Amino acid sequence: MATVNPPRGMRDFLPAEKRRREQVLAMIRDRYEAHGFDEIETPVMEDYARLHGGLGGDNEKLAFTVMKRALTTEKLRSAADPADLADLGLRFDLTVPLSRFYASHRGDLPGVFRAIQIAPVWRAERPQKGRYRQFVQCDIDIIGDATPRAEAELLAASLDAFSTLGLRDVTIRINDRRALDAMLDVFGFPVTDRPGALITIDKLDKIGPSGVAAELRERGSADEAVTALEEFLDGLAEPTEPYGAAQIRALLPQGIPEDVVDHLVGIGEAVGGPAALRFDPFLVRGMGYYTGTIFEVEHPEVSYSLGGGGRYDGMIGRFLGQDVPAVGFSIGFERILDLVELDPAVGSEAVVLVHDKDVPVAELLAHKEALVASGARVRLEQRPRNLKGALERAAADGYTVFATVARGQDELELKPLAEPSE
Amino acid sequence: MATVNPPRGMRDFLPAEKRRREQVLAMIRDRYEAHGFDEIETPVMEDYARLHGGLGGDNEKLAFTVMKRALTTEKLRSAADPADLADLGLRFDLTVPLSRFYASHRGDLPGVFRAIQIAPVWRAERPQKGRYRQFVQCDIDIIGDATPRAEAELLAASLDAFSTLGLRDVTIRINDRRALDAMLDVFGFPVTDRPGALITIDKLDKIGPSGVAAELRERGSADEAVTALEEFLDGLAEPTEPYGAAQIRALLPQGIPEDVVDHLVGIGEAVGGPAALRFDPFLVRGMGYYTGTIFEVEHPEVSYSLGGGGRYDGMIGRFLGQDVPAVGFSIGFERILDLVELDPAVGSEAVVLVHDKDVPVAELLAHKEALVASGARVRLEQRPRNLKGALERAAADGYTVFATVARGQDELELKPLAEPSE
Repeated sequence: MATVNPPRGMRDFLPAEKRRREQVLAMIRDRYEAHGFDEIETPVMEDYARLHGGLGGDNEKLAFTVMKRALTTEKLRSAADPADLADLGLRFDLTVPLSRFYASHRGDLPGVFRAIQIAPVWRAERPQKGRYRQFVQCDIDIIGDATPRAEAELLAASLDAFSTLGLRDVTIRINDRRALDAMLDVFGFPVTDRPGALITIDKLDKIGPSGVAAELRERGSADEAVTALEEFLDGLAEPTEPYGAAQIRALLPQGIPEDVVDHLVGIGEAVGGPAALRFDPFLVRGMGYYTGTIFEVEHPEVSYSLGGGGRYDGMIGRFLGQDVPAVGFSIGFERILDLVELDPAVGSEAVVLVHDKDVPVAELLAHKEALVASGARVRLEQRPRNLKGALERAAADGYTVFATVARGQDELELKPLAEPSE
Repeated sequence: MATVNPPRGMRDFLPAEKRRREQVLAMIRDRYEAHGFDEIETPVMEDYARLHGGLGGDNEKLAFTVMKRALTTEKLRSAADPADLADLGLRFDLTVPLSRFYASHRGDLPGVFRAIQIAPVWRAERPQKGRYRQFVQCDIDIIGDATPRAEAELLAASLDAFSTLGLRDVTIRINDRRALDAMLDVFGFPVTDRPGALITIDKLDKIGPSGVAAELRERGSADEAVTALEEFLDGLAEPTEPYGAAQIRALLPQGIPEDVVDHLVGIGEAVGGPAALRFDPFLVRGMGYYTGTIFEVEHPEVSYSLGGGGRYDGMIGRFLGQDVPAVGFSIGFERILDLVELDPAVGSEAVVLVHDKDVPVAELLAHKEALVASGARVRLEQRPRNLKGALERAAADGYTVFATVARGQDELELKPLAEPSE
């Protein structure tokens, strides 16, 4: 008999875990809606050509491909490439679909559109611990606002969400792709060398300034440029100022365009809690589509980031033929889930009715319906051999009290599940 | 430039519609949870072989197929059938995945497992009005209970859900596949003729007794059997009794096994509102996997059914190698959506802040954050040329009040959105 497991790298969620996931998502959704974001939904599939149009970076290679229908043997035989047999694919992120959605519905959306998307995406990655082939992304995006107000709204909403989830110690590292680019220019990296240099600079946290310099020299970057960068890195001190103009200027070399610095400063002025922000001039982030501000969320308890995002002013233009500013933020939902502590007693009274086998069904259902009508959640449980185990499972599923029902019984006596002795 | 529409037969949901869909689903989920059902989730994909194992009936032909990764040209060339290139597919229903899930996790689930599944499914149907290639199914199932208590719990929960949605006039038609089979036996249809005969009998509502008889004769059913059926149909009167033993016996010929009649009667005794039930000895339902009770939901305002389900005691055994009783009920979510009237004023106060362009971002965000902290939902709207249009759109998205913000303004004056004059 075939395996009954879910497909490799994908997961089933049992009641307790499903409940926990939905509770956390509801808390995030609630905060995002409070901040004026509106949820939308797109189909899980997009056109194959759309998913392989160069906007998704390396993720495009990980897209699951959906076959054309009604393929004849002849069509099969004549295929030289899998793409010849495919017309659709599963989305690998929510940003490409959002851009397509905006291009399609622009006339029906507000001038500044604030979108929530909470939905699964799929990537055909080699399964490994903590990496899944189906996982939920949790994005907000603001389309149509080029000012720092957009970044500030995104960050204020996200900080509110993290705080509501009990993750009050997050720090958001901020940088700007334009500042990175100008910095490399100042140090003397030629334009063609910069994308490669950024891949190495992204490892600064792990290998330090001398490691970065060594790797840059090894891959052939100009020696004077590398020396200038290394000297700058060696001279950097931890900022003593809070996020703002002074901190930002102290961490950048001379020669960065003023409008880029002003944009970064403007974000800090607008966000209510600048204590949670930190300027990081060497934050890179992988996606090629970022054009301006980029951010990443840190938490002291974990080494990986809990979310991130950035500005991608160029992407929607690819769909619309006209540039539209856009900035997005994504909470790493699968990563925060283990860090969140929920109040288990959320919700209405939940009652397990333990009944003997001989209680007439009509009597039993009458007890159940009366409790449901009073606002309770009710599970029937025919007295099992292992009552203790059944009640423990019910407690894990959020049930709080139980009562036993015998044939002809009028009144039920509710007892706390924590003390499952009768 | 490529189209920016979603793939053929699939839909984008804009904020107002997404909100409405989620509100209706939340109401259904809430009622189902109250009745002791627990939500689970499975991946959207299942193994190709699983989806084409004969349990999904005609829907198997409509499954979207996901290609294997890393297909070489050689592998492509040697493929004789699309199945040679596929290892996964998108689920076409939630019943096959539930059965697989139960087989996988049985040891971690209650003895009687009551599942909620609210999730999308995909079918490569020819798109037409009201038929989509991605749509949401809304299922509850009870696994592990062979008694009428299971049907009664399902129906009570579903009637509560329909009633909460304002659909108080639903009728649930009930039949039992075993009764249908016994009836055809009584009339003299041989075993091999019965599946075909049922396809014709399923049209009784549309073509009437004489139409059914004519079609059965045309397709070669035994003349005496058809005559016996036709005479029985002609002799049937509208039941004057409510759902129960009298109604059921009056509508069945002699010779139906007593245990089948008892099971049908037992359901009615246990459901609180038998007024909503009606025995229909000629209800068939298409799916081949039903083994006992079947139901279908009617509403006086529409000609199509709003949901249905039945017993499929054989299916889980196909996965587990051991028979387990199971019965499910599915609300036709996409079909009820237009019939439900929601209270638009659900949720907290929702404020549009119309601001002039020159209001400093920090001032503006301070106003917004103060309102958010007070429990409101807040959308910023830079004063557009068409303020009326923007406010109307906000009202459609559930916003209820607005205020204007000028530079340096201290206090905000909230006004109802219904009267958008300043």
